[in-house]
Amino acid sequence: MPQEEKVQGQGPESRKAMMDAQDEEIREKLKGFKNKFLVMSGKGGVGKSTIAAYLAVGLAKRDYQVGLMDVDLHGPSIPRLLGLKGNIQSSAESRKGIPLKYLPNMEVISIESLLGDKDTATIWRGPLKIGVIKQFISDIEWSNSDYLIIDCPPGTGDEPLTVAQIIPDTRAIIVTTPQEISLADVRKSINFCHQVNMKILGLIENMSGLRCPHCGKTIDLFKTDGGAATAKKAGLRLLGSLPLEPEIVLEGDNGSIAWMDKRDLPYTVSFSKIVDGVASLTKK
Amino acid sequence: MPQEEKVQGQGPESRKAMMDAQDEEIREKLKGFKNKFLVMSGKGGVGKSTIAAYLAVGLAKRDYQVGLMDVDLHGPSIPRLLGLKGNIQSSAESRKGIPLKYLPNMEVISIESLLGDKDTATIWRGPLKIGVIKQFISDIEWSNSDYLIIDCPPGTGDEPLTVAQIIPDTRAIIVTTPQEISLADVRKSINFCHQVNMKILGLIENMSGLRCPHCGKTIDLFKTDGGAATAKKAGLRLLGSLPLEPEIVLEGDNGSIAWMDKRDLPYTVSFSKIVDGVASLTKK
Repeated sequence: MPQEEKVQGQGPESRKAMMDAQDEEIREKLKGFKNKFLVMSGKGGVGKSTIAAYLAVGLAKRDYQVGLMDVDLHGPSIPRLLGLKGNIQSSAESRKGIPLKYLPNMEVISIESLLGDKDTATIWRGPLKIGVIKQFISDIEWSNSDYLIIDCPPGTGDEPLTVAQIIPDTRAIIVTTPQEISLADVRKSINFCHQVNMKILGLIENMSGLRCPHCGKTIDLFKTDGGAATAKKAGLRLLGSLPLEPEIVLEGDNGSIAWMDKRDLPYTVSFSKIVDGVASLTKK
Repeated sequence: MPQEEKVQGQGPESRKAMMDAQDEEIREKLKGFKNKFLVMSGKGGVGKSTIAAYLAVGLAKRDYQVGLMDVDLHGPSIPRLLGLKGNIQSSAESRKGIPLKYLPNMEVISIESLLGDKDTATIWRGPLKIGVIKQFISDIEWSNSDYLIIDCPPGTGDEPLTVAQIIPDTRAIIVTTPQEISLADVRKSINFCHQVNMKILGLIENMSGLRCPHCGKTIDLFKTDGGAATAKKAGLRLLGSLPLEPEIVLEGDNGSIAWMDKRDLPYTVSFSKIVDGVASLTKK
């Protein structure tokens, strides 16, 4: 590997050696994950983090070993969505961070679990973020896993670009709502993936219709099928469509995943199909 | 002004002189705006851009001169929300950009109106963004205005930090939904404002309840009153609460603002009160 080209001479030899060692450590760590997925969205608030968290849980409940890495440094929401308390501790032996365990076979890393005050604004300039994301791989004692699910902030900024660069075989799962303003941004995400040579596993359409809990009729709040049409046009697989479900919103707010066992909920049925689809499309 | 301290010696004298000249130009341009507001949110998808756009239009319709600056470089949505076509042209004389006019007394700048292909992903590393935001002020022929409304991407990253640094008398208008996961992020935005000494004009609670168009009953999709409670707790003014209105979502997707004339819509009534409130709180 042409490491000399990647590390720019910024100072003494020791600094370069340290960076080389970190890059090597990242490459080694990444070999421990069979499948890596970056959950992306063009626009915020489309339910990307929710889907990343639940996809990780869904795969873990199917007995896969799963790592969930939250690289949203400004608005990390994975710990809250999963009701995951506690802070990340260091191993006395290796001095590396030990990921939180949501399930015996599911590990989680988020900046939220590294910071003391949950309401503190993390003001990160771009270059700092790259360093943190690198450390999320090199300095964490991840188990060897079937899946690494990465939750990225919306848009096409430093975080997805960093992931694309340091984890070259990541595949994207793109989340959108059916409304045009979200689809416009999703087309940007698709172009981003083409630009950085990231393969796209497929698209998930979220918030696709809402059933009124009073009268049972469907409200097309953000329209419907826009995601399916966009997937078709871009030649992408539609991994599934999920309705907007007030009960799920409430559970997410409370860090509960009780909905996963409610097999009569249309959301549960659709989500389960998505997890099965992802599992069947990837190597064991 | 201690300019020497602000510009770091990065090269020849000419580069420093150019940066000094730009900083001076920014200071001069900013004197032309009586009131500056940064519309922020902790989380994406809470309707921040929609509120920024409609607030600008609402103020312009009340005969104020208004500038609307979209500093979301990854997912700019202002032009689509307002159905604003066309690209920004340069003045032959000054070689500066001429903002688009949405109304005779309302000017708009967005990266979307500078790029040819609307679906192109703009991959901006942090430092580049600072340059673009500076140019949005220094290199644009803004009219002297009563209001400059700035639409920022969600979170507490490079864009709001840059605005706080180069436009020190900006006041924040923070948008949230009533759900806990959004409120958690809003507390981060409030802390961010405290850290960078930005005054907060108030909080707007968006998507607060949804009336079923079939049965007329209210669905508390994202709960209600969480924004009001958060404002009270933080000692902030609640500028208003807006319901989630499928009709408005659809209009936003189509770039229409016909809803503003529908005086029987609860959204229209509430929004009008917010605009009146902002106008009464600020200097003419």
